[in-house]
Amino acid sequence: MTIILGVDPGSHKTGFGVIEVLGNQHRYVTSGVIRLPQGALPARLDIIFKSLCTIINEYSPDEAAVEEVFMAKSAGSALKLGQARGAAVVACVSEGLLVAEYTARQIKKAVVGTGAADKEQIQHMVKILLKLPAAPQEDAADALAAAICHANSRQGLLSMSGPHGGARMRRGRLS
Amino acid sequence: MTIILGVDPGSHKTGFGVIEVLGNQHRYVTSGVIRLPQGALPARLDIIFKSLCTIINEYSPDEAAVEEVFMAKSAGSALKLGQARGAAVVACVSEGLLVAEYTARQIKKAVVGTGAADKEQIQHMVKILLKLPAAPQEDAADALAAAICHANSRQGLLSMSGPHGGARMRRGRLS
Repeated sequence: MTIILGVDPGSHKTGFGVIEVLGNQHRYVTSGVIRLPQGALPARLDIIFKSLCTIINEYSPDEAAVEEVFMAKSAGSALKLGQARGAAVVACVSEGLLVAEYTARQIKKAVVGTGAADKEQIQHMVKILLKLPAAPQEDAADALAAAICHANSRQGLLSMSGPHGGARMRRGRLS
Repeated sequence: MTIILGVDPGSHKTGFGVIEVLGNQHRYVTSGVIRLPQGALPARLDIIFKSLCTIINEYSPDEAAVEEVFMAKSAGSALKLGQARGAAVVACVSEGLLVAEYTARQIKKAVVGTGAADKEQIQHMVKILLKLPAAPQEDAADALAAAICHANSRQGLLSMSGPHGGARMRRGRLS
C-alpha cells in the first residue's frame, strides 16, 4: 500500500488531500485547506510549510503530487503563486517525500477524462472516485485529484516496468 | 551584536551573505553562492532550503533580509523565481529568523546611494563598506547588500524607537 499526498498550492489557500493506494484501489484518508491570513509573506509561507510538515508527520505519505503551474494572470501573481508553491514543495522534499509534478491538464485528464474540465466536474469526479458522501471543497478536491493522477501514473509505471527498462520514478520527477 | 543573513534568491543561483553588526559598524563574516544543478525542480528547491538551513545553523544569524522581487520578465520566469524565493524564505522562517524584505531599489539606495545602481557598483560598494580585499561575486554581493540595507534600517529603527512608540520590527516585516 502506498500513501499519496496531493497538494494544490495557492497564495491564499493551499489544498491538501491524502489517499491510500493498493493496486488500482484508492481510499480517501483526509483532505482540507490551509487558509492563509492576511499579513507579511514570510509568515504566510511559514504556515504553508509548517502545516504541510504537520500533515506529513501525521499521515506518513510515501510520495507527493504537486500541481505544476505554467501560466498565471501576471508576473506579479506568478511570483506570489511561485512562492507558495516553493514553500509547499520544500515541505514535501524536506520530509523525504518523492515529489511528482503534474500540470493542471494532466490532473484533469486523469480524473475527469478531459484536460478542459472545470472545478465542479473535478469536485464531482473526486467524490465518485473516492466514494465520498459529499464533494470536497474546491482546493481540497484539486489536491485529491493530483493524488489520484499520481496514483494512476504510478500504477501505469509499475505495470510497464520490467527487467528491460520502462519508465521509472526518480526523485522529483517521473522520467 | 546582531548577526544578519542576506539572501538574494534566484532559480539558477542563490546568493547569501552574513555580516555582524555592532552599532553602525558592519563586519563581514561569510558569503557565497548556492549554485543549482540542472534537473527536477523539487530537488533544486531542496538544495536552496537545505543549504540555507546549514548556513543558518553554522553562523546563527539573528535576522534575515531577503530581496523582494516585484518584476520579472515573464509570468514563467516569475514563477521560477517565486519558487526559489519561497524555498529561501521558508528556510529562514523555519529556523526561527525574523525575515525582513527589501526591494532591489531599497537595497541599492542603502548601499550605493541611488536606486538605479548597476551590479558592478553594488559589488564595488560592498567591497568598500565591508573592507574586503576584493569584490564578492555578483549574487553574493547582492546578498551582502541586502544584509547591509537591513542593518541600516534596523539602526534607524532602534534610534527612532522609544517608550512612546516609533517603528518596530515584527515577524516578517518592518512596520
